[in-house]
Amino acid sequence: MTHEAGIPFGIRFKLLSDTPQDSAAQVVSDVVVGDYRDLDTLRDFARGCDVITFDHEHVPTEHLRALEADGVPVRPGPDALVHAQDKGVMRAKLDAIGIPCPRHRIVSDPADVAAFAAEGEGFPVVLKTVRGGYDGKGVWVVDSAEEAAEPFKAGVPVLAEEKVDFVRELAANVVRSPHGQAVAYPVVESRQVNGVCDTVIAPAPDLDEELALKAEEMALTIAKELGVVGHLAVELFQTRDGRILVNELAMRPHNSGHWSMDGAITSQFANHVRAVLDLPLGDPRPRATWTVMVNVLGGDYPDMYSAYLHCMARDPQLKIHMYGKDVKPGRKVGHVNTYGDDLDDVLERARHAAGYLRGTITE
Amino acid sequence: MTHEAGIPFGIRFKLLSDTPQDSAAQVVSDVVVGDYRDLDTLRDFARGCDVITFDHEHVPTEHLRALEADGVPVRPGPDALVHAQDKGVMRAKLDAIGIPCPRHRIVSDPADVAAFAAEGEGFPVVLKTVRGGYDGKGVWVVDSAEEAAEPFKAGVPVLAEEKVDFVRELAANVVRSPHGQAVAYPVVESRQVNGVCDTVIAPAPDLDEELALKAEEMALTIAKELGVVGHLAVELFQTRDGRILVNELAMRPHNSGHWSMDGAITSQFANHVRAVLDLPLGDPRPRATWTVMVNVLGGDYPDMYSAYLHCMARDPQLKIHMYGKDVKPGRKVGHVNTYGDDLDDVLERARHAAGYLRGTITE
Repeated sequence: MTHEAGIPFGIRFKLLSDTPQDSAAQVVSDVVVGDYRDLDTLRDFARGCDVITFDHEHVPTEHLRALEADGVPVRPGPDALVHAQDKGVMRAKLDAIGIPCPRHRIVSDPADVAAFAAEGEGFPVVLKTVRGGYDGKGVWVVDSAEEAAEPFKAGVPVLAEEKVDFVRELAANVVRSPHGQAVAYPVVESRQVNGVCDTVIAPAPDLDEELALKAEEMALTIAKELGVVGHLAVELFQTRDGRILVNELAMRPHNSGHWSMDGAITSQFANHVRAVLDLPLGDPRPRATWTVMVNVLGGDYPDMYSAYLHCMARDPQLKIHMYGKDVKPGRKVGHVNTYGDDLDDVLERARHAAGYLRGTITE
Repeated sequence: MTHEAGIPFGIRFKLLSDTPQDSAAQVVSDVVVGDYRDLDTLRDFARGCDVITFDHEHVPTEHLRALEADGVPVRPGPDALVHAQDKGVMRAKLDAIGIPCPRHRIVSDPADVAAFAAEGEGFPVVLKTVRGGYDGKGVWVVDSAEEAAEPFKAGVPVLAEEKVDFVRELAANVVRSPHGQAVAYPVVESRQVNGVCDTVIAPAPDLDEELALKAEEMALTIAKELGVVGHLAVELFQTRDGRILVNELAMRPHNSGHWSMDGAITSQFANHVRAVLDLPLGDPRPRATWTVMVNVLGGDYPDMYSAYLHCMARDPQLKIHMYGKDVKPGRKVGHVNTYGDDLDDVLERARHAAGYLRGTITE
């Protein structure tokens, strides 16, 4: 999707891909297959690149520092990206700059988890490995010290957090360029199913204007204070008592911004590319009253063709974005966007299409 | 731009390209460099393709017939495409199905041109080689038999046409799929400078609703009667006495439809891909009150980067589409789209950006 967004500017990508089957490798013309965890591979790859950016945050921080030392611009840079890689570093930084987060601290063992619980409202407590979590992986919700053994088995530091009493999850997406220009997308509501993003509504319905502004300001502050270049997604909890707390950070175009491909004047991918190249940013405002994104998860049909026929015929305004991935049950293989003036209708159309493509809706 | 539109559907293109520098070859991953006039090259290329389509109409008709005989689906097929390749065949067919055209006939020599002039309103007369014309090439406007020698030198049949007294040029863009579904984009106004499309306004301002409907119906009729699959652009004259006459046909996404990339619910490229794959077509309606496309012609700057900075900073809503072509004076190297509610503003923004990128506007 970043390649797609770069084509109109005449931007040519060189892609470092794990396998030739990766989504991006199917559509980018200049592909190097290699391991992003290997510094020599990264150095070979970086030769001849004007600037390097990412579609995930897993490249080791120290390798990115080495590339920077070699003189290769890395955007976002390692000193920013580490906050999306390490939840411990992220929480410490957000505390330091006064951004509200769930109560948290690094814990050393199950007994320490019990102590953390006792310091606050008690169990349940959320435990997260500080590195490597994704879509609910590396996250545990525990009701007792006895249940807290698992997270410590990996030998990675573990962060304990209060289980926030939230009414819903929001996301504030912003983009920042090297010389400090920044734009904020409207705050969206993000609905998760089994820890995986399912539906995003832009803008978040019935969100108090002051709260929305506060969320945008928080995201812009984080982008500035962390020195982010490119897209920053700030996942938020809206608490029952009316506060906004930061859940997670992502420094790349993010699932909570996919709606912008069809719903905003400038998509998150286009603005990410513009930021990484230090071009002036595009207008992030919505083009429709409501835009809804629903993820398409893999279902029982390996072949989507007949599902395409039905979905496209049923809704000529439907926007389908498939990633060219092999269909495996539960795997994110694409998303659909719908937009319009009537939220119920827009939601129904997106849900129907995503369900039909997955195979859970058959008519 | 067709590749860009195919990515969201997971469509992979294999490209036959004249050179590795061609615009599409810069962004498509599977590129074969070869000569589209060579049947063996075409046959080798076609192996493994599910369907073949085009971004120009110059592949020899007989080669396309050979591919079809080999069992390769070619869309649009040669029997349709010949009408966009040969203006003599096109005029004869449009006459046969009752579509109004400028007065015309094939002429054999300058004396015959004088006879053609005498049969109607006299000189000037427009002469066109029946094959190979493009952007004003292969077209002459002559004021006398003496001036009419040039077109006959190529040894290709020459078509004479009355010089139509038109108030403006319009274009009706439609897309048709193999099983006969068709959609019509709003009729646009197309402004030419030196025989080259300069500005397109969607929809055509102040166009009588009945005339607009008539133009759409004409284009749908042509698509059906000629068996077009994919995008069909019908270039039209709006005459001073209120008629609509067909000027040219193009069977591929067309310059007069570039506005749809940012201005329509479904772009011409997306609908072309959908039609060629026999998928249900997308909604062709506009997303904005007015959309304006202005072509970017090559100017004196070979490097567009600093021009990008200025244009993007001046107008964060501007949509730039560059083709990755080497900049040569007068060459189409890209286009810009703008949209909004105020036509004067939308026009000014598009013209300013295109002029600035070309270098004819410097502030």
